[in-house]
Formats: sequence, structure tokens, C-alpha cells
Amino acid sequence: MEGFPFVHRERVRFRDLDAMGHVNNAVFLTYLEQARFRFLEHLGLAQLEQEPPLILARVEIDFRSQATFGDELAVGVRSGRVGTKSFELEFELRVADRLVAEARSVQVAYDYSAGETRELDERWRELLAATQIQAV
Amino acid sequence: MEGFPFVHRERVRFRDLDAMGHVNNAVFLTYLEQARFRFLEHLGLAQLEQEPPLILARVEIDFRSQATFGDELAVGVRSGRVGTKSFELEFELRVADRLVAEARSVQVAYDYSAGETRELDERWRELLAATQIQAV
Amino acid sequence: MEGFPFVHRERVRFRDLDAMGHVNNAVFLTYLEQARFRFLEHLGLAQLEQEPPLILARVEIDFRSQATFGDELAVGVRSGRVGTKSFELEFELRVADRLVAEARSVQVAYDYSAGETRELDERWRELLAATQIQAV
Amino acid sequence: MEGFPFVHRERVRFRDLDAMGHVNNAVFLTYLEQARFRFLEHLGLAQLEQEPPLILARVEIDFRSQATFGDELAVGVRSGRVGTKSFELEFELRVADRLVAEARSVQVAYDYSAGETRELDERWRELLAATQIQAV
Repeated sequence: MEGFPFVHRERVRFRDLDAMGHVNNAVFLTYLEQARFRFLEHLGLAQLEQEPPLILARVEIDFRSQATFGDELAVGVRSGRVGTKSFELEFELRVADRLVAEARSVQVAYDYSAGETRELDERWRELLAATQIQAV
Repeated sequence: MEGFPFVHRERVRFRDLDAMGHVNNAVFLTYLEQARFRFLEHLGLAQLEQEPPLILARVEIDFRSQATFGDELAVGVRSGRVGTKSFELEFELRVADRLVAEARSVQVAYDYSAGETRELDERWRELLAATQIQAV
Repeated sequence: MEGFPFVHRERVRFRDLDAMGHVNNAVFLTYLEQARFRFLEHLGLAQLEQEPPLILARVEIDFRSQATFGDELAVGVRSGRVGTKSFELEFELRVADRLVAEARSVQVAYDYSAGETRELDERWRELLAATQIQAV
Repeated sequence: MEGFPFVHRERVRFRDLDAMGHVNNAVFLTYLEQARFRFLEHLGLAQLEQEPPLILARVEIDFRSQATFGDELAVGVRSGRVGTKSFELEFELRVADRLVAEARSVQVAYDYSAGETRELDERWRELLAATQIQAV
């Protein structure tokens, strides 16, 4: 997927559809969540057994076309802006060549034991920055 | 609801439907779960903030008619057999007067810290038994 | 709810939580969907039995605090910009006085039989515009 | 999987978990649904684009152990009793070698246009019967 070095694949379940016969809008956030976990795992930043020390602060998604039962979605993920305490992820969802949705999320580093936001570890900042799209 | 002193009410969400336009079969187990929590809370046996010390061991459900968006389901709950370590719950789901489903579940008392089944507290046994249907 | 003449109420189900014990991010789009249906129904623009002739084009949501099992969410809805073929809705989600999330969605008028976007009916434009927040 | 010639594989999503950190009981019916579709497709009896002419009449499921995020479930499917108007399916769900659940469902042949049950086609009866476990 052009511009997305990491791609997560997710198969649409029958339960993902709604009464219109298409994937329900809310389910796309589940696909983004799956892709986010796999992306962080791929970078060596998270293990599936442990919740990463993050809070999801924002999601925005533009729906471009429909997906339906049996489709396999390719979800491209890359870093957007990497800040001191938060970072953005950018997503593109496709079924074969067709664009299905584009999305962006903001994650904030969080210390669950202290119950407060914290700074992103330097290792996270470096590894995330390495997946940003390169301006030419 | 005849034979069911406790009734939980649940409104069907659009997301509960599947591509056939009816409530998806899996969602009925969510309605049973909601009714089970409210029933135990009603008996004073569980608080919503705390998971009751139980494991769900079995569910059986007979689908009798369809439910759809906007329906309000009445879920009758009562105890079935109350054993030493487990108890049964019996459910009837209706939309107005129409029977939608009948179900039965088996719960086993469980000590999560020890990681093993345990005996039901006597207080649980008494309160559950009081909601059993009376044979005449 | 200040600035929101229409408020939809939705009770959090146990199934809405994720492994962190809070309402999962994707479920908030289900709450918005419920609120959207009820808002259009309230305006006399949609009936629950019929899918309104709309496509959801975009959602953006900012998560402000957590919601959990047993919470009752109040979802305020009002119109944002009303265009020729599309309109925005603005949402605020609260548990009691606490802000849980803010969101905005874009809906496009769609002719499902022709398979193409269409202009919003004048009646829709008028009724939606009447719920916009008034600049002072 | 011994005794199950057909096996469907399904990966657990984070959204499948509940607040206990395990796959929620209702989600198992979604796994059975996925496996049922793939099994009928495998037999040449259903295509994913078309809902098979069936109604789900009953499900029973025994939960044997927990599944969690990242697990890949193997769902074995075979026919049970094949009747004139209905047939049973039998399921076994495993994570690697560990038994997670056992289930059984009853499907009834249904004519959606006439709105009534009908007899199973002879071809269905033959193909289903061929996947029954052989008594020795």
C-alpha cells in the first residue's frame, strides 16, 4: 500500500454488518484498534498480552466506500506527528485497490498507576518517527 | 410476565441488528448477560461495579420469533436448579406479548484468586431458591 | 444539557466495555448512531422502521473521560452546518455533569435506488437549521 | 481436529474481550456463525453474498476454558442429525490443543418469500449427512 510500510489485514465478519448489509461505521474503529495493536507490536513497542501505556484521545474517520461480508480489509498504518506526550497515527483502509476509509487517531502516553499523562519514552519517539511518511 | 417475578427491560439498538434486519443471534446472549447482572443486583447478590464470583458454564437458547430495531425486550429471569457449587437461571424474552426466545444458563461459583470452583454461599443458595418457580 | 435542546439517553451495557473495564472507543459510534436516529425521529424526519436516505461520510470524536458499566450517558445532539447535499451534527456525551466525549458527524443525502448523492429536501434543511446553536 | 473434517479459523479481536480480559460469552456465537457460513460454503451449499435459506432455531454452548486477545480459535464443524426440515451442527472450539467450548445448533429450512418453514432440499440432506461423524 503506497505510503504505508505497515499493513494489517482483517477479514469482515457477518456480525460486522448492519441492517444495510454493509460494515457498520462503529466497526471501523475496531479495525483501527486491531491495526494499532499490530503496528505497535510490529515496532516492538507493545505486546499483545499487555495494554500499551496509552490513552486514545481522538479519532477522525472519512468513509469513502462500503465494505461487506467476506471482504478482506488491508489497513495501512504509519505515524503522523510525534509530540512530547502524544503521537498521531494515520490509516488507510482498502478492499483490493478500492479505498474504503481514511482515518487518523491521537494517542497520549499515560501512566495508569499514577493516573496521569506522561512523556513518551525516547525509544517510542524514535521508532514511531521512523514510520512517518517522508516529505520529498 | 407470568412465572417470572423479576423482569429486566432492554431496548434494541441499531447495532444489534444484522444484515437480515433482525437482532443477531449472538446479541441475545448480551441481553441475557444484562438481565443476569440486574437480577443478581436485585437480589442483593452483586453490585454492578464488581464482577460476581461466578463463571458462566453453559447457555442454551431457543429462538422463537424475531426482534428488531426500536423493540423493547422484556427479559424475565428466575432461578432453576440451585446446586452446591452451581445454579441455573431461566429466561423468557418477549416483545409486548410475543415470545421471542427462551433460554437457560448455568453459573458456577468461582474463586478468582485461588483459580478454582468453590461452594455457593448459603445466602446465595437461599435467595436464589426463593425465586424458583413453585411446582403446584 | 446547555446548548443541546435534544438529549438522547443510553445505558452502558457490560458488553460495551473492553478489557480495560471502560466503554470501548468503537462503542461510542454506536451511541452516536442511536442518538442520530432518535434526533431525526424527534424532528419528524425519520422513522425507526426505515433507514433515512443518508450516508455517514465522516465522524470525528474527542474522548474526554471514561464511562463504565451501569453509567447512563446523556447524548446531546444539534445541527451544525446545513449544506445543499449534506449536514453536520454535533454531539456532547456526558455522565451526570462530567464530559465524556465530544463528536461531530457529516451526513450526505443519498438516493439508494439511483446509487448517487442528491440534494437535501427543503423540509430537512429547515428543520435541521432550526436546531443549530444560535450565535449571539 | 479429531472427528471434525472441517475446521474454520478465527482470530480473537481486542473488541471480543470483556472487562474480565477474556472473550465474552456472546462473541462465541459470532464465531459459530462464521464457522457455519464457511462450512456451508465449503459444502457448496451457500455463497457468502447470499444468506442461506435458513433460520437459526437453537444454540447450546458449554464453556470449557477461556480464550483471550491474539488467540487463534480453531472451530471444528460437522453435521449432527439431519431431519426433513431441519439439521443440527456440532462444534468444537480449541486454542491449540486446549478445548475452549463445545456447541450445537439447530437450523430450520425457511422460505423467506413465503414466510414459512419448508423441507430441506435433497442435495442439502445428502451433503450434510456426508459430514456426520461415523458411529463405529
